[in-house]
Amino acid sequence: MTDPSSFADLIQSAIDNKTKPLGALGQIETLAAQIAQIQNTLTPSAETCTLSIFAADHGMAAAGVSAYPSDVTAQMVLNFLAEGAAANVFAKTLGANVQVVDAGVAGPMIDHPHLVQRRIADGTQNAITGPAMTERQLQDTLAAGKEIGQAIETDVACFGEMGIGNTSAASLISAKVLERPIETLVGRGTGLDDAGLARKTALLNQASDRTEPLLDAATALREYGGFEIAMLCGAMIGASETGRIIIVDGFIASAAALCALQLYPDCRRHFIYGHRSAEAGHRLVLEALDATPILDLNLRLGEGTGAVLAWPIVRAAAAMLRDMASFESAGVSGPG
Amino acid sequence: MTDPSSFADLIQSAIDNKTKPLGALGQIETLAAQIAQIQNTLTPSAETCTLSIFAADHGMAAAGVSAYPSDVTAQMVLNFLAEGAAANVFAKTLGANVQVVDAGVAGPMIDHPHLVQRRIADGTQNAITGPAMTERQLQDTLAAGKEIGQAIETDVACFGEMGIGNTSAASLISAKVLERPIETLVGRGTGLDDAGLARKTALLNQASDRTEPLLDAATALREYGGFEIAMLCGAMIGASETGRIIIVDGFIASAAALCALQLYPDCRRHFIYGHRSAEAGHRLVLEALDATPILDLNLRLGEGTGAVLAWPIVRAAAAMLRDMASFESAGVSGPG
Repeated sequence: MTDPSSFADLIQSAIDNKTKPLGALGQIETLAAQIAQIQNTLTPSAETCTLSIFAADHGMAAAGVSAYPSDVTAQMVLNFLAEGAAANVFAKTLGANVQVVDAGVAGPMIDHPHLVQRRIADGTQNAITGPAMTERQLQDTLAAGKEIGQAIETDVACFGEMGIGNTSAASLISAKVLERPIETLVGRGTGLDDAGLARKTALLNQASDRTEPLLDAATALREYGGFEIAMLCGAMIGASETGRIIIVDGFIASAAALCALQLYPDCRRHFIYGHRSAEAGHRLVLEALDATPILDLNLRLGEGTGAVLAWPIVRAAAAMLRDMASFESAGVSGPG
Repeated sequence: MTDPSSFADLIQSAIDNKTKPLGALGQIETLAAQIAQIQNTLTPSAETCTLSIFAADHGMAAAGVSAYPSDVTAQMVLNFLAEGAAANVFAKTLGANVQVVDAGVAGPMIDHPHLVQRRIADGTQNAITGPAMTERQLQDTLAAGKEIGQAIETDVACFGEMGIGNTSAASLISAKVLERPIETLVGRGTGLDDAGLARKTALLNQASDRTEPLLDAATALREYGGFEIAMLCGAMIGASETGRIIIVDGFIASAAALCALQLYPDCRRHFIYGHRSAEAGHRLVLEALDATPILDLNLRLGEGTGAVLAWPIVRAAAAMLRDMASFESAGVSGPG
């Protein structure tokens, strides 16, 4: 591998010699430099993309943390498989592949040839009153995620999630890993009204009070779940190990990213943040991650939608470095 | 044509019935509704895109308003034709067509099979001391632009520009059409240093003092040019007349958009704003346009780069309305 610091100079020099005023492509230039470092080349590629959607249920959903019933998780898995969800539609029109992973959906097993079946259990335990999963389950979940991440063969890996109740899990994990008051990380999720938000906050306070204010990432995942967040965390680690460009989606994926960074710090150079979510708390997590997201479209859907929408920008950034003419090659005069 | 107000209700109802929480796709939903109105259908399409780049020279460039020499305009036209510029690279990787228009480049005619040759003159006159073009030239420029706009056959029309000195023209036009002090609209363009910026500001004050503080759009274009901005304005009108989705690029394209809106107010429903440029003054123009741009990537290149980078988001918005399943069609439960 090239020495990273002198390689950074080479990248910057290549970008600065492109036929454009110095710095005129703003964040595209920053992204191009990061992608060149990830792929260790001055001719990087972000032409192919896989969106992996991890789905699972949360024991605490029954306590009333969400506006939607738990059944919706399995229904949405079927919707993903029928290519009817927002994530499918975005991926299809933009040219990304989609794979759907059952990490721990509740209820009858879903039988479908295109579903990646890695169900750990029929949903987590109720994290308000006790640990969401056992240590063994956590290790199995992370290992399954790593395998899935390592198996991705496209240039870019987008990761999304679906799980009724999972903004609650993400709030608890983020609060514990960052040692912040849970109130600063609770939001309306899929659309709670004021009374619903008050109930959710009270329940999450109860859940938070069960454990110390600061937890390591593995403990936070085990205590608060869910299977989809932990598997997504494992997949981020696996895809980092195999050199993928990783586009992190919104609030829930960012909670997984916080954990992945602690468990495997090299993830940092692979992570590109797709968007700033409208979910309260995402801003705080993005600040903690020192992230500059690509999009700010007021999205709050999950499923990897914000990541896959950001992919064309990432793709263009790689193409800029790979394909743009230099002042010399194009015979264009510089300033002065 | 459907009654617009009841059609707006139909669109909103279709969006609200998609398998996602109410409003969870934020700006994507607003874009989808606008595109449905433009195309007058609940199954809109933004699958195809043409980027038209208008190039011309500015008499005032010789006075020293830019960091780059005027020669660069013609050199960049050749770079566009050789597919080496940022706009080409972005368009190619994202799947958009590119056409390059010589609206008034200075120097020898450029002979190339792929160049749209509509040169009005070898650059404008020096707008610091007198009108940039004659009334006849203005009318010819607008008419040529309209024809080019009307001939675009793709769902989406992105418009870009290239012309050394054209942030100066855009600043003057915006200042006069909006009746704002020129200082609030002057920026560093392709990268002026402090001394260069002071010189540019002094020259633009001189240019501005030649005319009344408030000018109508046609007069502002005639007084300050350039041919590429006026032709782009005409093209926006032509493409609006023929029902295209128009993605407006950065500061210079927004100055053309200001003029197009005055000359043909129906443009408003066709305009989508691609990005917020790093060029000082664009923020003010966007506010005057009541625009919510899609991207904010600190770009300041022009060429339509910000518009073409925003196209995939527009494309995804149309696909959302056209292709996403409804709660009913997918058998997904609603809230509660």
